[in-house]
Amino acid sequence: MPQHKNFPLIAAIDLGSNSFHMVLAKTDQQDIRILDRMGEKIQLAAGLDEHLRLQEDAIQRGLDCLRRFAQRIGDLPPGSVRIVGTSTLRVAINRREFIERAEAILGHDVDVISGPEEARLIYLGVSQTLPDSPGRRLVVDIGGGSTEFIIGQEFEPQYRASLQMGCVSYGQRFFPDGEISTGNYVRAYTAARLEMMESESSLQRLGWQDSVGASGTLRSVAQACQAAGIGQGEISRQGIRHLKQMLLKLDNASQIDFPGIKPERRSIFPSGLAIVEAICDALDLSKISLADGALREGVLYDLVGRHHHEDVRERSISSFMARYHVDTTHALRVEHKALELLEQVAPDWELDEEWHGELLSWAARVHEVGLDIAHYHFHKHGAYLVEHSDLAGFSRQEQQMMALLVRGHRRNIPADRFQEFGRDATALLRLCILLRLAILLHRIRNHHCMPDLQLRVSGCQLRLLFPDQWLDDNPLAAADLAKEAQWLQRVNHQLEVV
Amino acid sequence: MPQHKNFPLIAAIDLGSNSFHMVLAKTDQQDIRILDRMGEKIQLAAGLDEHLRLQEDAIQRGLDCLRRFAQRIGDLPPGSVRIVGTSTLRVAINRREFIERAEAILGHDVDVISGPEEARLIYLGVSQTLPDSPGRRLVVDIGGGSTEFIIGQEFEPQYRASLQMGCVSYGQRFFPDGEISTGNYVRAYTAARLEMMESESSLQRLGWQDSVGASGTLRSVAQACQAAGIGQGEISRQGIRHLKQMLLKLDNASQIDFPGIKPERRSIFPSGLAIVEAICDALDLSKISLADGALREGVLYDLVGRHHHEDVRERSISSFMARYHVDTTHALRVEHKALELLEQVAPDWELDEEWHGELLSWAARVHEVGLDIAHYHFHKHGAYLVEHSDLAGFSRQEQQMMALLVRGHRRNIPADRFQEFGRDATALLRLCILLRLAILLHRIRNHHCMPDLQLRVSGCQLRLLFPDQWLDDNPLAAADLAKEAQWLQRVNHQLEVV
Repeated sequence: MPQHKNFPLIAAIDLGSNSFHMVLAKTDQQDIRILDRMGEKIQLAAGLDEHLRLQEDAIQRGLDCLRRFAQRIGDLPPGSVRIVGTSTLRVAINRREFIERAEAILGHDVDVISGPEEARLIYLGVSQTLPDSPGRRLVVDIGGGSTEFIIGQEFEPQYRASLQMGCVSYGQRFFPDGEISTGNYVRAYTAARLEMMESESSLQRLGWQDSVGASGTLRSVAQACQAAGIGQGEISRQGIRHLKQMLLKLDNASQIDFPGIKPERRSIFPSGLAIVEAICDALDLSKISLADGALREGVLYDLVGRHHHEDVRERSISSFMARYHVDTTHALRVEHKALELLEQVAPDWELDEEWHGELLSWAARVHEVGLDIAHYHFHKHGAYLVEHSDLAGFSRQEQQMMALLVRGHRRNIPADRFQEFGRDATALLRLCILLRLAILLHRIRNHHCMPDLQLRVSGCQLRLLFPDQWLDDNPLAAADLAKEAQWLQRVNHQLEVV
Repeated sequence: MPQHKNFPLIAAIDLGSNSFHMVLAKTDQQDIRILDRMGEKIQLAAGLDEHLRLQEDAIQRGLDCLRRFAQRIGDLPPGSVRIVGTSTLRVAINRREFIERAEAILGHDVDVISGPEEARLIYLGVSQTLPDSPGRRLVVDIGGGSTEFIIGQEFEPQYRASLQMGCVSYGQRFFPDGEISTGNYVRAYTAARLEMMESESSLQRLGWQDSVGASGTLRSVAQACQAAGIGQGEISRQGIRHLKQMLLKLDNASQIDFPGIKPERRSIFPSGLAIVEAICDALDLSKISLADGALREGVLYDLVGRHHHEDVRERSISSFMARYHVDTTHALRVEHKALELLEQVAPDWELDEEWHGELLSWAARVHEVGLDIAHYHFHKHGAYLVEHSDLAGFSRQEQQMMALLVRGHRRNIPADRFQEFGRDATALLRLCILLRLAILLHRIRNHHCMPDLQLRVSGCQLRLLFPDQWLDDNPLAAADLAKEAQWLQRVNHQLEVV
């Protein structure tokens, strides 16, 4: 179970596809007061080559920026800083390389989050800044590589969608070298309309009263509208028409010197405007007002929630268990036993009772979800569901680790899959073994009067100590343990039962 | 939608891991009268090497037997014969080779069925032969490679489990060369107890009034009990004890000449008895009575049901859609459009409106199930669910084909996955294209007034004919079709839109 801590200072960093941002805040209970903000345009998405490989110069731009951020957060303790990566890091095939270098600079973990999770956090950030209103809100955030749509009411998101269109990626694709033409604009607009086709009916079915935009792209379009004397700072059809007309008179994005648009946003303005127009047409929006708050503020509020009994991950796990009809009593018994074993071996196996305890506890609670698909290979189905479901609050890495524990809880332990986790591989394998033993001991207890027992470990050696004579009196339990010893042998661990 | 036919003669063949069986029956509406039965001991499971490869001599034994069966069913029309393969064909890595040769001999398709589907059909076969009784029944069927457990009431199975233990595979593993010893017997018994551990609590939680056995193994144990003067043809604890005592006095299975046991069953008697004893202990059974009817009769009844508006597959699809919250209106519209397109192209594309129509219709109805896991890559999640779920009535191949159509309904079409289906690859790819077009046309219709249109095909060329001027008036629809043409181009199909 997670512990609850009070950090006086917390920070959030958003490794976006266009810019990297950091916010530093003071906390007082669940209140947050922003102390400092930093942001730099990195255009990470522009550094993806056609094989979705991040190129070294883009990596360097990003790391240079993080060195500057690191000076501000260098002394903040673990747990007080959260760093999230979004669409470019979701798709880059060499993300691990970037992440490891970034973590070395920042001294904190980098979490890659899914599109729907990004949407949830954006909504959390935006909804804190909006006046109370009972109706539904549509929140739109156009990023460098993806665009998120959320319909929510007060602080609760009800529908989240993440589309793979962004001002940096569309800029590269449709306005190469900044070249502006009607053809380029129409192609960008049409691509955005096609991208929206699958989601627009779901959004429209739910409906909304107000449409609100976050993100720099929407802000710069709104500011350009206002600077042109159209409206009071919102995006309107008339404003879009005006800006488009101005834009199509130019040959290159470098010539854009409309009032309200900062020079560093010129290169992504044409693609951004085409996406904004496509969204307004697809969703039949007459205006979009602008909101403060975005992903990074959402990350801060989520972090504070985790420290104050409002860890959204706990709610996700519970509803995931319910959805797939998990036998809760059994799952909680296994969880209890697994944490008991962790306590016995944590020092010798260099496991962290807090973070590894959380992971082990989640895995124990969901290890049987796959049974709802089919019994045959249910550990594989469970791992699939854990890895691919939208579990609010979890990072991609957390879901992948949890999935691996579920995958390995039964029958053979896939050693190669553990290796993929690099420096976490050993700890994950050890957690997996603890989960297996917890399940096995629970199974034995169903058949026998279960004695107190001790688990001792040293490297790859495990000793499970039973009272004298007990194993001789319970040959089936002994056989079950002997079979488990064979499975563990395959991953070079020796289970000795005495 | 399936058509309903009346076949005066129907047949079922069960390619079991110990024996192959055939039943031939006369039908009169939904009544069945068995005309003929044939069975041969093949011991297909004994032909699996350590890499789970079926060896040539076992394949030959099987095919020789099927040549004899083929003489009886050679002239029966398609749809009147169903041939099912069970555990050995589920696990054999070269099953396709065996199946293709078997199909060439028999002139009918061979369906490999999953363990739970086998359990369902066994229950269907057994329950037809039992007297009406209101209580729950436990049905056990020990096969050559797997053992099925079903708890059901009247004709409805409520719980199905299939365990990987069988008299042939356990015979090979624990009694090599037929060698009998207390150690061998205890190892076989213990392995069976461990195998049962995961299922026994689920079975016991449901409970039952009567326990009934099907299959040759249970029958021979029961007959040996009766021949020894114990009981009236049921299996009892006393009988098992007696047979075990007799057995352990011998050195080799070839010496078993107990009354009631046929010579050809001697080699698998020790493993069969150990499994029977383990089941009785694990489930605390004092006796098991014997039932007529088994898998092959279940297959016959299922076949008759398909011809008389009781296709259990229709029920499975409906409950699968409900479970994963499919938007039924949308799914049925897509189904309707897909079948309409199939009708237009079936002759030119050599598609069978009946069988391919069924497959296309199932795939259309379930194509969005994956959305319930996550929107991102939902076609892949849907394919996973379709392939791995227990869908009563479907063979493994049917589920795999349906899964492939779901996998390919959106974004890229995985050409290599289609190739795996050998001679069915072309038809499946064509069905997948029809499904995609149906979805696309439905999407366009949401946006526009949809005109009548015609699809013409010739090999890899598709022409979609719109009324004059319509495409010019609907540029977004035209763009959507152009994008689809690009996807199809990647699998070497040309979509021309005029």
